[in-house]
Amino acid sequence: MRWVRVKTQNGPSYGIINNDIISLVRGNLFETIELTGEEIKLANAKIMVPLEPKTFYAAGLNYAQHVIEQAKANNREPNIPDEPHVGYRANNALIADGEPIIKPNDSSEEFQYEGELVVIIGKKGKNLTEDEALDIVFGYSIGNDISERKWQREDRTMWRAKNSDTFKPLGPWIETDVDLNSLTTRVTVNNREVISFKTNSMIFGVKKFISTMSKYLTLVPGDMIWMGTEGHSENLKIGDVCKVSISGIGTLSNQIIADK
Amino acid sequence: MRWVRVKTQNGPSYGIINNDIISLVRGNLFETIELTGEEIKLANAKIMVPLEPKTFYAAGLNYAQHVIEQAKANNREPNIPDEPHVGYRANNALIADGEPIIKPNDSSEEFQYEGELVVIIGKKGKNLTEDEALDIVFGYSIGNDISERKWQREDRTMWRAKNSDTFKPLGPWIETDVDLNSLTTRVTVNNREVISFKTNSMIFGVKKFISTMSKYLTLVPGDMIWMGTEGHSENLKIGDVCKVSISGIGTLSNQIIADK
Repeated sequence: MRWVRVKTQNGPSYGIINNDIISLVRGNLFETIELTGEEIKLANAKIMVPLEPKTFYAAGLNYAQHVIEQAKANNREPNIPDEPHVGYRANNALIADGEPIIKPNDSSEEFQYEGELVVIIGKKGKNLTEDEALDIVFGYSIGNDISERKWQREDRTMWRAKNSDTFKPLGPWIETDVDLNSLTTRVTVNNREVISFKTNSMIFGVKKFISTMSKYLTLVPGDMIWMGTEGHSENLKIGDVCKVSISGIGTLSNQIIADK
Repeated sequence: MRWVRVKTQNGPSYGIINNDIISLVRGNLFETIELTGEEIKLANAKIMVPLEPKTFYAAGLNYAQHVIEQAKANNREPNIPDEPHVGYRANNALIADGEPIIKPNDSSEEFQYEGELVVIIGKKGKNLTEDEALDIVFGYSIGNDISERKWQREDRTMWRAKNSDTFKPLGPWIETDVDLNSLTTRVTVNNREVISFKTNSMIFGVKKFISTMSKYLTLVPGDMIWMGTEGHSENLKIGDVCKVSISGIGTLSNQIIADK
């Protein structure tokens, strides 16, 4: 099932997508919902960020080639982690499919995409085994972890580098029926493919990540985990349209614009 | 004015404290509220975490002696930052005044307190000057940034070190009438004072922090910033009661207990 969050006259509403029609619902996405009877065309919908997470988690270095590329860029030896690195991102940076990514005036040309699988948590979980981990997953979405690499080298916490306003495109929706092993992530810039990789070729997969996190922290409905990206990223410049597609989920599209 | 969040039969409710009485309110703390007419005795109230923030920000190294002590513990030269370090903490870790801090079974003896001033944001703000920065502050509370130092050295992101469940006591309430320059932070362990410092002797004060953050990110009502701590921390052991007091705000008290 495909869940989308849209702007309506009565505020934000979730809906279920069937073909090109959205059937609106009321209630809590993670508890009980019911159809309102209202339908709108997907083409006419104003799509919103699918979720403002309770806690916004992000995998640090979670694909082998990305670890190697990042190490090379920083003149360091690559160091493949032996345990998941659990990081954080910030809600201020979230934007929806179709909304512009604003490139800050003082950012460098090293302004880059990172196409990522996003895990949406739907149930409470603590001390989960890897076998239990996927039981608390509600569904999956797509994220673009926009990164300013000069700031990433300078900032101890990556706050500007990864969490400036508009740096976290998310969407367009949440898909619940996903076979992780069949997914391919593909990023294009102005419709030119810049990278394509097997989404599930992670150093630490979703099960391992959730299981490890849940040893120390309680995951709750509405938490979100971005799973990291693969390979090398190119620079984005003003005017570029960057799309992240994951097969079976959808395509997240955003244009880079100049700061006012 | 002193705002407290309490458990009631109808769910969480904010209230205003006058002497030993809480007057309950309805509405949004940052927009319009009105008195419900209900009153409860503070002594009988079940105090909750005063706020589950939208984004949970934390100053990294923000007091000179703490920078020196942390460098010494890590066999490094101290490096006083020349710009604010904006970090993040996670909502899963929040607990209220009086609730137990659970020491994980596999944590080391380097299990330590950090008494901190907490800033609660009440208005939206972007690109604020230092003169404008305090206009978006709603009030102040008290935090104990519980830290496992062995994990802090090992984890690139401090996720276990600082964000394991129960590692972020917050409260007991939010005080809106505060003169930052007059405040003293005092931490006791089993009623023995372990540190006392001028709360506002920060490397980067609240104005500078908010102004710097707001260059890149929009602060919104319900965001929270923990301002860092001073000096050296001692180890806490199971059974210890750790209290953080800030003059004019209150006292946050929590006991360390063993994991099940």
